[in-house]
Amino acid sequence: MPTKRLEDQIRFILEIDKEKNILRQTHISGFARQENDAEHAWHMATMVYLLKEYANEGFDVAKAMMMALIHDVVEIDAGDAYAYDPQALATQKEKEERAAERIFGLLPDDQRDELRALFEEFEKGETAEAKFVKAMDNFQPLLLNDYNDGGDWREHGVCKTQVTGRQQRTKPGSQEIWEYTKTLIEKNVQKGNIKDE
Amino acid sequence: MPTKRLEDQIRFILEIDKEKNILRQTHISGFARQENDAEHAWHMATMVYLLKEYANEGFDVAKAMMMALIHDVVEIDAGDAYAYDPQALATQKEKEERAAERIFGLLPDDQRDELRALFEEFEKGETAEAKFVKAMDNFQPLLLNDYNDGGDWREHGVCKTQVTGRQQRTKPGSQEIWEYTKTLIEKNVQKGNIKDE
Repeated sequence: MPTKRLEDQIRFILEIDKEKNILRQTHISGFARQENDAEHAWHMATMVYLLKEYANEGFDVAKAMMMALIHDVVEIDAGDAYAYDPQALATQKEKEERAAERIFGLLPDDQRDELRALFEEFEKGETAEAKFVKAMDNFQPLLLNDYNDGGDWREHGVCKTQVTGRQQRTKPGSQEIWEYTKTLIEKNVQKGNIKDE
Repeated sequence: MPTKRLEDQIRFILEIDKEKNILRQTHISGFARQENDAEHAWHMATMVYLLKEYANEGFDVAKAMMMALIHDVVEIDAGDAYAYDPQALATQKEKEERAAERIFGLLPDDQRDELRALFEEFEKGETAEAKFVKAMDNFQPLLLNDYNDGGDWREHGVCKTQVTGRQQRTKPGSQEIWEYTKTLIEKNVQKGNIKDE
């Protein structure tokens, strides 16, 4: 028989399977359908490893990858708040705190504390790991959206000030990715995918 | 302007987005739909980190997580071969070699070589990382299938010899997960989800 510890770990592993049903506003390449949280986190964690040379500071790669993999777990209860919807964002924080309590609470105490702390660290965005993971959290949907000729931006009538406001949080994680981000924003403004205001 | 190096890395990042369209035989929890390769890899990499204490040998966690994240990239060209379909498995190896050549070939040379080697290492299954990642590659769909009351096994009329044959490759990675795997197989044989032959 498995130990209580392994059983608790498995309960958490099965609970987070629900991330596969949480749809984001971003569409996958080709625009066939919306991306879900599990796919987004997979893509981000892969990018953390592949693009680590562009980080402003050295960081713990395994820790940052795990941070990327679980950073949206709370959306199982709280749902996804679109980055450019201020009303949704206002109540999101409180919902996410309750979700973190419940979902990480399924784990054995030591792992509950570790993953909860990893999630809070990501939210605060102050450490080298959190800064780079936040950069990937911005850059991953930006790449898909640019590849899809700005479909998500056009659908939501998003303007340059909004995209730049959000995307500039990439800068503390990676100056180089931020420089490239600016060229992608400009390109999409020129194409009319992002409103120039 | 981005460097040629960053451009190549981005081409690879956008290419592997296609994994979100490669469906596996396994269904997500609740059996609403089949799981895709990106979701499976996300779940596996998370499990590599969460269950690392059960590995038979110490291993490099970041390396094993990256191995899990990219182990199915070749299926973008080669497709998914069902674990219990011997005909599909026979031609799969050659298709996967060609796919590895093309897809990892999008990367800058050093990363092409690194990721290609990581993929080959996974396939050979000889290092501590490869053995534990293979254990997770078995255990992840086993957990979903058990949660879904054996729906995938019943659909394919799979028997105990087949499941045990596949799942025993978990043993080199984790004796403890293998012991638990045996109890899950036995439970599903008792329930008639797996044929007792």
